[in-house]
Amino acid sequence: MKGQAHAFLKALEALVENGGLPVNVKVMLEGEEEIGSPNLGAFIAKNKAKLQCDVVLNADGGIMRPDQPSLVNGLRGLAYFELWIYGPKQDLHSGSFGGSVHNPAQVLCELIAGMHDANGHITLPGFYDKVRQMPAEERRSLAHATDEEWRAMAGVPQLHGEKGFTTAERLGARPTLEINGIVSGFTGEGAKTVLPAKAMAKISMRLVPYQDDNEIESQLRTYLEKHAPPTVRWELKKFVSGPAVLVRQDTDGVRAAFKALEKTFGVKPLFKLEGGSVPVVSMIQAHLGVDSIIMGFGLPDDNLHSPNEKLHLPNYYRGIEAYIRFFDAIAET
Amino acid sequence: MKGQAHAFLKALEALVENGGLPVNVKVMLEGEEEIGSPNLGAFIAKNKAKLQCDVVLNADGGIMRPDQPSLVNGLRGLAYFELWIYGPKQDLHSGSFGGSVHNPAQVLCELIAGMHDANGHITLPGFYDKVRQMPAEERRSLAHATDEEWRAMAGVPQLHGEKGFTTAERLGARPTLEINGIVSGFTGEGAKTVLPAKAMAKISMRLVPYQDDNEIESQLRTYLEKHAPPTVRWELKKFVSGPAVLVRQDTDGVRAAFKALEKTFGVKPLFKLEGGSVPVVSMIQAHLGVDSIIMGFGLPDDNLHSPNEKLHLPNYYRGIEAYIRFFDAIAET
Repeated sequence: MKGQAHAFLKALEALVENGGLPVNVKVMLEGEEEIGSPNLGAFIAKNKAKLQCDVVLNADGGIMRPDQPSLVNGLRGLAYFELWIYGPKQDLHSGSFGGSVHNPAQVLCELIAGMHDANGHITLPGFYDKVRQMPAEERRSLAHATDEEWRAMAGVPQLHGEKGFTTAERLGARPTLEINGIVSGFTGEGAKTVLPAKAMAKISMRLVPYQDDNEIESQLRTYLEKHAPPTVRWELKKFVSGPAVLVRQDTDGVRAAFKALEKTFGVKPLFKLEGGSVPVVSMIQAHLGVDSIIMGFGLPDDNLHSPNEKLHLPNYYRGIEAYIRFFDAIAET
Repeated sequence: MKGQAHAFLKALEALVENGGLPVNVKVMLEGEEEIGSPNLGAFIAKNKAKLQCDVVLNADGGIMRPDQPSLVNGLRGLAYFELWIYGPKQDLHSGSFGGSVHNPAQVLCELIAGMHDANGHITLPGFYDKVRQMPAEERRSLAHATDEEWRAMAGVPQLHGEKGFTTAERLGARPTLEINGIVSGFTGEGAKTVLPAKAMAKISMRLVPYQDDNEIESQLRTYLEKHAPPTVRWELKKFVSGPAVLVRQDTDGVRAAFKALEKTFGVKPLFKLEGGSVPVVSMIQAHLGVDSIIMGFGLPDDNLHSPNEKLHLPNYYRGIEAYIRFFDAIAET
């Protein structure tokens, strides 16, 4: 780590000797990314003139290995829902009523089970209509850890995903549908013979470019209208959602970022499709017409959104160095 | 209610005038029924001599309507399990890993969904092998509320159950499989894009006579071994369970109970198969060789095991009266 800290200090010294940054910088900070940036779009639209710029740098991305730099050229979007199934008017005794009433937890499980087919495809009507076929060359160029590295990182007995696609494609180029949470009935210790009154699941889709979260919502409603039995009532709530985004690769900004990364890491950078969602990228694209350079240094095993979240310190210093070098490189264009 | 209280007082007066009960009474109280009476069987076996008796009276039953008395001639048994599905080593970011890892909540839903077929039959291999076919006459004689009464009591849009059987049969004569609880991932307010590390469901079966809870466990294990995917690990825990029970109807005790109920309510009693489970009944049958007379006065809308549990007071008094009359009637046999 000493080496990285030393290199970063040298870059900082050069910055001081040169009398500061060679470019003008505007900084925008937001604190709502984790809940889908509900207010940021309106803010950017309102402050268009103030925010006008040539290049946007965004640190909310990651690289796949500590020593392999990469830039994110695409992010998945998000559509997030809460599905409620209501059965009896209140929790019932599973002996007195069991067998005569449709159990809402069972109904919810059946509805969720039906959302994927045996090949791991999502069954919502029209879900893949707008998903672009990726050219063979682009498929091959997708950078990713090996399956065994990835399996060990996730800590699962075996990877799983949509048939016919590689792990890199499943993560960056294909939409997904995940159960983020589910709850019903008695979940404490021991046994309670209750027939629950209701059941809830949090269901979210990661979207790829051209998929629209409003269309996804109506596909989900169509699915539920068709498959939810008349023995229960259901309710669907939508949380903040956003589209996927692709960023251009042939820009001065991207070339400057490549130069800075290569100089810092001593390794040629790659492009990477990121599975997560960063709403500000598409908002800036829409309102300011500028593609973001997504240059961050998080690692897949950083335990994002999970206990023991961490940061790999050598790349904290490399990140600072790469940013300083980026400002030099972009000033030269 | 005044009428019932008055009748009960008159019966009590007669009891006092007669100089007390005309029979000897032994009282056994237990406090573990709700967790399946784990210690009671051993207690009865150990105190066989002390507990020896001609007739057993058990108050843990119910009647179907406030003015229609009935005796329980069968109780379902119970097999109670907790099923755990383990996926990633810890919660993952659903963007970074979603699409490449099998979601344990989804796996659990798929396993649960597969436990019933489209006709509401339970699919565990061999589950119905020991379930007796009920004679047509017995099917017809089963007493129950109307479907509309029952639907309103449960507060559901529509009743639901195994195809080919009436509500009375579904409740008393057919085994069931219920989800008593399920939990996985994020269940708080709002959105969290987590891919859960594990998922848990509490699953219990109500058993009918001749089904054995150990066999049911191995049927469930066989089902899971066949259907659980290699992308996850699973664990099955069994909680206290017990068999179903049928009690004979042509005994002096039952005849005395009928007499007492008819005198108290002014209405001929019916027989009723109870959906719930009362372990002590089969324990006494096994160790003392005595069938219990299950004469209780709970109502289906008493909200058992649920908020606002209640007791219908007029039947509280009728219950006391019926018990006093029962002691007289049994003394005469």
